[in-house]
Amino acid sequence: MTQSKGEPRIPTETIKRLGLYLRRLRRLLTSSVETVSSEEITRYLDISSHQFRKDLSYFGPFGRRGVGYKTDQLIVQLEKILGLDSECPIALVGVGKLGSAFLAYTGFSNFNIRIVAAFDNDITKIGKNWEGIRIEDLSRLETIVPELKIKLAVLTVPAEYAQEVGIQLAKSGVKGILNFAPANLNLPGEVLVINVDMAAELMALAYLVQKLDR
Amino acid sequence: MTQSKGEPRIPTETIKRLGLYLRRLRRLLTSSVETVSSEEITRYLDISSHQFRKDLSYFGPFGRRGVGYKTDQLIVQLEKILGLDSECPIALVGVGKLGSAFLAYTGFSNFNIRIVAAFDNDITKIGKNWEGIRIEDLSRLETIVPELKIKLAVLTVPAEYAQEVGIQLAKSGVKGILNFAPANLNLPGEVLVINVDMAAELMALAYLVQKLDR
Repeated sequence: MTQSKGEPRIPTETIKRLGLYLRRLRRLLTSSVETVSSEEITRYLDISSHQFRKDLSYFGPFGRRGVGYKTDQLIVQLEKILGLDSECPIALVGVGKLGSAFLAYTGFSNFNIRIVAAFDNDITKIGKNWEGIRIEDLSRLETIVPELKIKLAVLTVPAEYAQEVGIQLAKSGVKGILNFAPANLNLPGEVLVINVDMAAELMALAYLVQKLDR
Repeated sequence: MTQSKGEPRIPTETIKRLGLYLRRLRRLLTSSVETVSSEEITRYLDISSHQFRKDLSYFGPFGRRGVGYKTDQLIVQLEKILGLDSECPIALVGVGKLGSAFLAYTGFSNFNIRIVAAFDNDITKIGKNWEGIRIEDLSRLETIVPELKIKLAVLTVPAEYAQEVGIQLAKSGVKGILNFAPANLNLPGEVLVINVDMAAELMALAYLVQKLDR
């Protein structure tokens, strides 16, 4: 990956953590907490307050030493950084168990992320409504995705179809794919793929727990 | 988190990547690739070969400069590091859509990770078999988990139940939780929680794609 001079590349992990901070801050605001310390924000998140300050430092100065952060201000700033001031339409491909779970997932509320199209190749599902979304025939993906100007997709198809569908998405103008299929996608360079590998997550957990036991 | 002197703390992200390297190496071995370069291993993974070498460096010297890695040897070494020589029994709590997806997930094969118990509080599900696993009453969790010596759990309950079930798991001897509920758990210090936050993943993707567009 290339990067322009003088503009540090921001780690993907930093961006993911901004989302976690945002969720936490919103909860604190709901509890009428008006000023917060980095320790309060990162408590329960399994993230150090040092990491929090480092993550924020990529985006300029925030808060004041010894005073902390204004909850509402920091929320607005994070929303702006994450581009949540405009809605982000998403396509979901593969309405199996995991795909259905995604359609029903409540964690997206307040994040301006919205699944606007869902695709499958199972004729018993096509045309039906799931969680208010009509399931479309996979063969119509390359028509519908450009029509709806969708740039992001969630891929929840079986591993053996992942590459083929990935190519279809790339052809349709999708620029980012969240891939849950346990398969590595080989796509044109302008398409970003974030792999969520459940086995890798569980292995990491098993490893860390073993380490603690010693 | 504390760390002993002279023993660098290994980042959780490094451990997750080891799992991805392992999956890729196994695929390469299946294709009869006997020797591999770091570039070949990280291709399609969206990870730099520099990151790969840095990740391995935590665990000692591997491979030889200019020669690469023996595929089969590196697989065995990674399996040993990740503790995959012994099976890891896992409990799943919450057999809703996401939980069912987990029970049906095929990506765990060859990783010695096995869901051995599943729990729910829905009486229409209790006693039934899903993917060969009997769904047990959530009220029996604190009996069954210690019996089966389960140390790891996957939490796929609705957000409002996550904290309560987390406490039950901690009481039952669970040391690590992979939490899919969009909620932050406040558990005793000896329990490690890895949060998988789908909204945060999607937001990160949206952010990175926007950056590329500019």
